[in-house]
Amino acid sequence: MHTLLILSKHADSYRRLIDAAGLPDLKMVTATTSRELPDETADCSIVLGEPSLVRQALPHLAGARWVQSTWAGVEPLLDASLRQDYVLTNARGVFGGLMCEYVFGYLLARERRMFEKFAAQRLGRWDPTPPGTLRSKQIGLLGVGSIGVDLARMAKQFGMWVKGYTRSSETCADVDVYFHGADREAFAANLDYLVCVMPTTARTRHLVDATFLAALPSRAVFVNPGRGTVVDELALADALRTGRLAGAVLDVFQEEPLPPDHVFWRTPNLIITSHTAALSMPEDIAPVFIENYRRWTAGEPLQHQVDFERAY
Amino acid sequence: MHTLLILSKHADSYRRLIDAAGLPDLKMVTATTSRELPDETADCSIVLGEPSLVRQALPHLAGARWVQSTWAGVEPLLDASLRQDYVLTNARGVFGGLMCEYVFGYLLARERRMFEKFAAQRLGRWDPTPPGTLRSKQIGLLGVGSIGVDLARMAKQFGMWVKGYTRSSETCADVDVYFHGADREAFAANLDYLVCVMPTTARTRHLVDATFLAALPSRAVFVNPGRGTVVDELALADALRTGRLAGAVLDVFQEEPLPPDHVFWRTPNLIITSHTAALSMPEDIAPVFIENYRRWTAGEPLQHQVDFERAY
Repeated sequence: MHTLLILSKHADSYRRLIDAAGLPDLKMVTATTSRELPDETADCSIVLGEPSLVRQALPHLAGARWVQSTWAGVEPLLDASLRQDYVLTNARGVFGGLMCEYVFGYLLARERRMFEKFAAQRLGRWDPTPPGTLRSKQIGLLGVGSIGVDLARMAKQFGMWVKGYTRSSETCADVDVYFHGADREAFAANLDYLVCVMPTTARTRHLVDATFLAALPSRAVFVNPGRGTVVDELALADALRTGRLAGAVLDVFQEEPLPPDHVFWRTPNLIITSHTAALSMPEDIAPVFIENYRRWTAGEPLQHQVDFERAY
Repeated sequence: MHTLLILSKHADSYRRLIDAAGLPDLKMVTATTSRELPDETADCSIVLGEPSLVRQALPHLAGARWVQSTWAGVEPLLDASLRQDYVLTNARGVFGGLMCEYVFGYLLARERRMFEKFAAQRLGRWDPTPPGTLRSKQIGLLGVGSIGVDLARMAKQFGMWVKGYTRSSETCADVDVYFHGADREAFAANLDYLVCVMPTTARTRHLVDATFLAALPSRAVFVNPGRGTVVDELALADALRTGRLAGAVLDVFQEEPLPPDHVFWRTPNLIITSHTAALSMPEDIAPVFIENYRRWTAGEPLQHQVDFERAY
């Protein structure tokens, strides 16, 4: 018998979804915050939950051997001061659809001049200004993991040219040309859209800095539904303010919620979407846990295992 | 030798594009309005142009045997009082990409709450309201011609369920279920999005009337990048004002530009895009003419021939 602690604000939904799967040899206990942990917590060998909550509960999770994160990002658990003697798996392969809706929704909003046209409408003005098109535009993907692969596939549906920047991998056929390491300025050249879907690691911190931004054409728009740590926020605000960059759509920030006095609230040509690009939905994540539980009980390697060293 | 009259506000672009194709036995004359027709007009056997301009020039086009429209819609030439003793071809198969960008752009804008989130941002407010998703939503296509086929294919990319309403055809594999004729209320039931891409004909006039609108769920959004004549505008304004319909995105109207005193300027939950959904671009239309010219000189049937009786 395995005891699972579900530690999530959606604990009830997870319990219902996992119950419905009828997994063998599984007992479940739940908590929605780390302040109300059940008595069985120390006996739980498996944890399913939000990394921020799991981090708070970690001192009480003496028996945990496997933690399944409900998020893609597991930064709260990667701190070197924390124990790393368990198997950590994250949620992967489930956010691609929502990320596509976010990214292409905002790309199309820009090409179609949606906000400008809506402002004209409010003034009672017929606005026949021709829209642009995504067709033949260049999109650059910073990171071509499972989300990047879905973005590349959708970009092809819209007739775009796709550039990919990765550590070394070149496996996605929808990417027309790959760049790595020191090639980031060649990658940036001629992009119409730069989309960041990289994890937080020591290598990606402030990758999008003043030098990177200066290598983009001034017509380019930067979209970040990935991680706020990848961006030098002051350099980005400066590029937008001076018109060296045409626009940005940001879902993630170094501090969230974005502080009231942050320069971004006053930065022109910037759209702020308040970390809603791809919310973690129990209906999407439960199947990841269920498949991994099958593997766990069968003694097979788990899917989406996080390398504590590599940080993703 | 064939003499072609290019009668278009983009006449110069068309001349350049057709010149570049080096078509045999072709002489070209151009005009950008019907008030400045060239001396050779009566000798022209072929006309390429905007249907509204061609209609004005028709009395002077005694020698015309084939007219290639630069638009999809050819209503100006269908009036029964006009001569119909020539071959009329329209532009088809070139607007699907732009129509997809328009339709899915506005569907995503709605699901992502883009306008609401932008309003919150302007107030300096962090807005974590969860967005919706297109996945598993129902889209209903009024008309499944060449544009409808492209919309259906893209809807599938976003994981939507696709219903199609046609006169009789059922040829598109991306449509999950078809409806015809009197089945329009069954077609409307449970739709999240209703998209109209039908031509103007006697059969489609005011097809979207109070009865049709009442059959839609109140959560539904109506998108019309097709033809304004298909809609009973007062019934639509009423449905939006009373909340019986959640929203509408309209590109086309019975009168364009939309008159300053039209009720739509004051109708809530309505987006007006001023007939810009899929503009006719010479780079897209010239290849249609070039292929048809090849067929014309080879004595083959032309592509995209309009049936004056059927009206499309």
